[in-house]
This record gives sequence, structure tokens and C-alpha cells, in this order.
Amino acid sequence: MEQHPQKTLPMTIHDINDTICAISTPPGTGGIAVIRISGPDAIATADKIWHGRPLSQAPGQTLRYGTVDAADGTRLDDAVAAIYRAPHSYTGQDTVEISVHGSTYIQHTLLQSLTTAGARLAAPGEYTRRALAAGKLDLPQAEAVADIIAARSRAEHRIADTQMRGGYSARLRTLRDALIDIASLLELELDFSEEDVQFADRADLLRRATDLRQEINRLEHTFATGNAIRQGIPTAIVGHTNAGKSSLLNALLDDDRAIVSDIHGTTRDIIEDTAIIGDYTIRFIDTAGIRDTTDTIEQLGIQRSRRAIDTARIIILVLDPTSPTLDTDTLPATDAPLDTHLIIAINKTDIATPEALRQNPDFLRRLDTLRAIYRTVDTVDISAATGQGLDTLRAAILRAAGHDLDQSDIIVTNARHRQALADALPPLDAVIAALAPGSPVTGDLIAQDLRAVIATLSSIIGDITTPDLLSTIFSRFCIGK
Amino acid sequence: MEQHPQKTLPMTIHDINDTICAISTPPGTGGIAVIRISGPDAIATADKIWHGRPLSQAPGQTLRYGTVDAADGTRLDDAVAAIYRAPHSYTGQDTVEISVHGSTYIQHTLLQSLTTAGARLAAPGEYTRRALAAGKLDLPQAEAVADIIAARSRAEHRIADTQMRGGYSARLRTLRDALIDIASLLELELDFSEEDVQFADRADLLRRATDLRQEINRLEHTFATGNAIRQGIPTAIVGHTNAGKSSLLNALLDDDRAIVSDIHGTTRDIIEDTAIIGDYTIRFIDTAGIRDTTDTIEQLGIQRSRRAIDTARIIILVLDPTSPTLDTDTLPATDAPLDTHLIIAINKTDIATPEALRQNPDFLRRLDTLRAIYRTVDTVDISAATGQGLDTLRAAILRAAGHDLDQSDIIVTNARHRQALADALPPLDAVIAALAPGSPVTGDLIAQDLRAVIATLSSIIGDITTPDLLSTIFSRFCIGK
Repeated sequence: MEQHPQKTLPMTIHDINDTICAISTPPGTGGIAVIRISGPDAIATADKIWHGRPLSQAPGQTLRYGTVDAADGTRLDDAVAAIYRAPHSYTGQDTVEISVHGSTYIQHTLLQSLTTAGARLAAPGEYTRRALAAGKLDLPQAEAVADIIAARSRAEHRIADTQMRGGYSARLRTLRDALIDIASLLELELDFSEEDVQFADRADLLRRATDLRQEINRLEHTFATGNAIRQGIPTAIVGHTNAGKSSLLNALLDDDRAIVSDIHGTTRDIIEDTAIIGDYTIRFIDTAGIRDTTDTIEQLGIQRSRRAIDTARIIILVLDPTSPTLDTDTLPATDAPLDTHLIIAINKTDIATPEALRQNPDFLRRLDTLRAIYRTVDTVDISAATGQGLDTLRAAILRAAGHDLDQSDIIVTNARHRQALADALPPLDAVIAALAPGSPVTGDLIAQDLRAVIATLSSIIGDITTPDLLSTIFSRFCIGK
Repeated sequence: MEQHPQKTLPMTIHDINDTICAISTPPGTGGIAVIRISGPDAIATADKIWHGRPLSQAPGQTLRYGTVDAADGTRLDDAVAAIYRAPHSYTGQDTVEISVHGSTYIQHTLLQSLTTAGARLAAPGEYTRRALAAGKLDLPQAEAVADIIAARSRAEHRIADTQMRGGYSARLRTLRDALIDIASLLELELDFSEEDVQFADRADLLRRATDLRQEINRLEHTFATGNAIRQGIPTAIVGHTNAGKSSLLNALLDDDRAIVSDIHGTTRDIIEDTAIIGDYTIRFIDTAGIRDTTDTIEQLGIQRSRRAIDTARIIILVLDPTSPTLDTDTLPATDAPLDTHLIIAINKTDIATPEALRQNPDFLRRLDTLRAIYRTVDTVDISAATGQGLDTLRAAILRAAGHDLDQSDIIVTNARHRQALADALPPLDAVIAALAPGSPVTGDLIAQDLRAVIATLSSIIGDITTPDLLSTIFSRFCIGK
């Protein structure tokens, strides 16, 4: 899970040859908890606190029953030890996973006992960092581990799982290698430059570079979708107070099938509620406070809510068919196309019929205008009061949420990767300009720009890293993974 | 962990021959989570969602790498399966423990996948109930499992661990068997009653029954200590507002070594803070609001605080040596001996010297009176402001907390056991009265009372149980154990 960097241990420890230990199961109390020990001396260290058949004699991938000691040598608990022998473990090192009763006392006392026996408390993500060092994972796969653990919905899980399975790295490596091909051809030409031979067909190189630019640009743009899926898809419910948007929000959240949690914003004016709907985490933005006040301070809050609505990827406009006006004035005022999906929910089907509104020429005209602005426009008849039509509304939300997600493709969810892709574009643009017919730029300058693009893509895959970069990446991890 | 009975599943399921599954690790997100499957078809059920070498071919006590499927047959996650073959498992049944990445999505999706494959979600404590049915544990040991998991401090853990290791049951069984001995002798006599033979020496039987009564009574009284250790030892800090008791409370709680949590009482007037000090959970009762008001409603609160103080096992009286009065009037007004330990903390050593107070004849006289009332009286010099003397105060708290705890003995922490012990006393008293010289009560009536005592003790050990009793006991458990 992600942690605030300041709250994690300083990642100054890069030694992979000492023995580390941590609680690997979720924090708190449960039936069992698992403490993981990894390092060259993992088995010997565990044996120091172990009673039962010695772990040092256990083959890899076996389980042993026994008891574990507290640091003072008294018996602490019954335990099962899982033995993994290098290189057949997550970290590639000898590893022991000790299962004990999941009390907070036992968990912390066992950790204390292991540190007394010579192990060191693991830093956040240190097991995965060792797996990376052992070549068990590449860098995007290691980064995906944190995303997999944090995933709440199927869509989040899918994206992280794709990254973990290696398809993501493979795609970036293909891109990078195609750029290396271009660079090789240009550099070959440079080697023979005195002979004034042009090996590479410039038109072909230009076409290739342009295709690659398009692909990198497209990948960078998937981040908006990926990030929305990871953070929860921002979805604003707008409409006049009497339209019933509060009851709709409650109806969507109160449903048993929705796992609901409260995220209170930094101001009292924007309150977000998250629900899992189908494959997605939907982050509903409560705009209930909007337009209900003339108070100056409250109006500041409303401005913030407005900005929150402007960042929504889905807007649900709740209309009251019993109202004489069309109520679309609560939508953001714009004529320009928006990257947003609109769902018009005609409410109160329990007390009114939506047909009159649906056949209203003013409404139909307004609908045409909206279709020109929003990426998709859907209309749904609902009754927030009785729950009628809510399943249809949920289906419309899922349709809008899934619109940008081509399941077979890779999606960038990692801000570091997005930044690297963005950083690759300016030098690549320079390459493209230089490859254009009649460009005076020489091959060596083009090759230099290409190398910058290649280095940037290599940094995503992890072929180029620094300890600082790794420390930043792994500080996001939970301890124990 | 304990759960409110209404919030748990109805325990109507006593079938031990179907296959159950549950998340066994603490709820929430972590590096890894473990889902446990138990039952005759556990391995076959797991194989249905497993890719890798078949689990059905794995020997017991081994680990297998593979992947697990979601209910729709898509790949969910990488996994490690631990195989346990009957009877060598916690439940005595075939068991598979699947470790996956600890996201909430994966945990719940895997459970869904397993139920689709034919397993049933386990009820609270159902694994332990199966272990009981398989004879892996007796009833007090099974009950101790929940206490072990809930333990926060070393003392709590020790008591539960002793009960789990079986010493507790053995002691109760010895008591019960001694009563059976007496009953046998009396019943033998009844068989030969027409011959007017008195096999048993009544004086000997009386002595034995009296000893047993004393032992049962003593055990019942250990519950007060056991319960205090389990709930946190109630410790009131009293004294006048200017004596510095609020700063003392904060100093005791703010310490890094103390794991602090807030327990808000049902009223706003009694607030409790819990800290682990040494081996004990200490439950500090905040009496800061006392004596500061003349408001009627607040005074009702004060009465409640007073009652909370009356239930304290430790009272810390904070005295201000710069005050002209002795300030002992905040102690409960009594001349009768109390079952409470008193610690007098002479505060403000940073700005005053405690010697004047310590040598004050009034204070010394008052100390003598208090020594006659409290079980133990300790005096400590502290400065809540600078932290001076706080370690000495903590040591005094631990001395008081540990006073009633004979580590080598068994302690009753279970309310059901305490009730059974209390229920055993009246019929045992009747037995003792009937065995007294000159009693007209006949042997058959004595035997009848003895059988009631024996049945009551047998119910603790679990030699006599009902499905309802078991359901009540296991409804306290967490799901997954």
C-alpha cells in the first residue's frame, strides 16, 4: 500500500546480504499472521528462535511444525515455518515464513525476537527490491507489486496485473529497441560519413520515428485513464437540490453490493464517497452544497466544488421531470468539446413519467448540443426514491468508465512512467524535424537526440537506474513486501 | 478477536464434512494474505482454481507455486499453496492455505472463486471448532485460541497461552476427579447400605471436600485479576486539578514506548486511555472532570466517574507538595479495607522538594491510615512536567499490577468458567454441611449434590457440551480461525 514518504523508514539500506524480517500480512489482529525472513542467514536466524526439527535440515518448499521463542528465550507460540531455499523464493534468497497466531502481541514480540537473533527490520518494499536485484522481476514489474496490493477493483487489478506479467515492459522494450534500430542505422552512416554514403532511407526513418512518436504520445495519454482507474473514476452528480441528487448518491452508495468508504476532503466543502461498481472504483463527488447559499465563505467552497466537477470524467445530471425548467444550467458552462462522459438521469419515475420531457423539443435540441460537447451522452430513467432504474444507471456508469479502456492494451498508471514518456517527446520531435526532407541537421546531432529518447525509455524499464530512484520507488511500498 | 454476537453469522452450521474457506490473515491490505480451505474436499476444491503442478499430487507439509483463477476462469494472481494432509493439520482435515498478494480485491475475488468451486464461507471460529471435533484441542484450549489472538500484552498472552497449553484443563480435571473419588466412595457405601457399613471415613471426606471448596473458591476469585489483565488494569489518576494529574496522564500516554489507543466511554464524562506498560495493558481512567463543576448534568457525570474510580484496581493519587493541604480528599471516602493498590505520586519535583511533605507528621499519620485500607501503598517522587521519576512510577504501577499474579498458577479469564465455578459452590457447600459430624443427610443426597458439582466442572472442560453452548463460544471468534 502507498505510504506517505515521511512516515516510512529512510531507505539508506541497500545491502542485500544481511538478513531482514517483517510482518508480511496486513496490520492488526487476525487468525494468523506471517513473519517473513529473507537473506543468506535466514534459516540459521530462524533456527535460533525455533523449537522442533531444525529448519536447517528442511528441504526447500516444505513446512515444519514447531514453537517460536520470545527474545528472553521463553516459549512464545506454536508456529508453522515455510522453508524456501535460494534461488526458489520471492527474493531469490533463502527465506523462512513463520505463521503464528495473529495477535498484535505475538507479531511484535516475534519481530523483536528475530532482531535479537540477528535479523534486521526490513525497510518498505525491501523484499521486492531484493527480488529486483536477483533478476526475479524487472523494474515495472516491481512497481506493479505495490499497485497490485493497493488494487480495490477489478480494473485496477487488471492494469497492475498486466504490468506485473511483463507485457508492459515488453511493449516499452520493443519501442526502445525500434529507436535503437534507427540510431544504429544513423550511427553506421556516421562511421562511413567520409564516404558520403547514405545507408538509411531517410523517408523510412522519418516514417518509423513518426509512428514511434504517435505510440509514445498515445501511451502517455493512457495515464489519464489509468490514473482515474487507480484513484477511482471521478464522477460528479449535478442538478438542482430538488432534483434528488442527494437521494441518488445515497441510493448508489447504500447498496449492499457497493463497498463504501468515506474520504473526507481537505475542506469541509468537497466530500467524496467511493464505491466499487462492477469492475471499477467510482469516486463520487458530492456537489450537494452547490448553489444553496449566498454566504461568501460557502461560495469559496462552491468554487472548489466547481473545480472538482471540472475534473470529473463522468457527470451525472439529475433532472426533475416535474420541474418546468430543463435544469441543465448546473452543468459546466462550455461550448468546447470536453473529455467527459455525460449521463442524464431523469429522476422521479415513481411520481412522474419521463416521456413528456423526452419529447420536449427544447430538451431534444439541448441534447444535440450536449452530444457535440461530451464524449458520450446517455439518458436513463430512474427513481432514486424507489431504486427503480438504478441498475440501468450503474450499467451506464460502467459503460462510460470502460469507454477508454481497451482491455487488451497496456495502460500507464505510474506517474514516473508518464513523466518519462512526456520527457521523450521533445527530443523525438527534434529527431523528426531533423529527418524531414531538406533538413540541414547532421546525423550525429540526430543520433544524440535519439540517445536521449532511448535513455528516457530505458529508465522506465529499469535498464538505467540510480539508488536514489530505487529508494523513491520502494518508499511507496508497505513494509513486509 | 471478539465480535459482537449480533454481527456474526448465525452458527447453525455444525456439519464438519463440507469444505470451508475464509481469509485467515488480518482484514485489510498487506504484502500477503492467506486464504485457508479445510474439509475432506479441500485439496480437490483448491485444484479447481489452481494452475501449476496439481495439489492433489503434493505430499503433506509441502509448498507449491502456481496461479489461482477468479470465478470467471481468468487468471487472478500468482500464489503459493501450503498442503496439509489429514490428520496433520490444525483442523485435523485436509487443508490448503493459499498465499496471494494482500489486496482487498484479490482476497475477496479468491474467496468468491473458491465458493464457486464448491467451498462454503466459514463461520466465526469454525476451523477451531473442527479442531475441537477432531480432538486436536479440548474446550478450554479452543476458547484460549480467541484469547491468544486478542492478547495485546505479555500478561494477557501468558494467561491465554497457559490455558492453551493444557495446564488449565489438567488442573480442573484434577479437581473434578478428586470430587469423583469422593462420590465413588459415597456410592460404594450406598451399594452396601443394607449392611450398614461405612466405608468412607467421613472426617476424611469432609477434609477433602473443604480443601476442594477452597480451591474452587480461590480459582473463581482469580477471575477479578484475570479479567483486569484481559480488559486492561483499571487505573485511576486522582488528585486536585492543580496537582498536575492531566499532565501526568499525558506524560504516561505520550511516551514512545507505550502503544496508545483511545476508548471513548458511552458517556462523554468517562474517557479511558489504554497503554501497554511492561507486561500489562493499563487502562487509565481520566478523572480530570471531577470536582470542577457545580452544573447538575456534569455532576451526574462525576458520579459515574466516581463509580469508575471505585472499580479501579490501582489508584494513583497525585499530590502537589507546594499546596498547603494534603489533598487526600480526592480518594474514595472509606475506612474499610479495599482490594485496591494505592500509589502516591508526589509531583512537581522540578519546582519543589518532596522532603517537607514526606516529613510532615500529618502526612505520615495519614499514610498509616491508608496502609490499613489499601492492599499496598507506594510513594514515588515525580515531575510530570519534566518526566523525572516516571520510570519509577511505571515500576510502581507494574508492581501493583503484578501483585495478584502468581505466574506459576492458572488464572480464570473466561466468564463462562467463572460462572461454572460459582455455580459449583452452593451444592459443594451442601455436601460439606452434610458431611459434618452429626448431619442427618443421607449418602444418596450427598452423592446427588456431588454429581451437580462434578457436572458443573465437567462443563468447563467440555466433557459435557451442547451445540448451543458451542455456538455461543465460537460466535466470539473471528472468521478465519
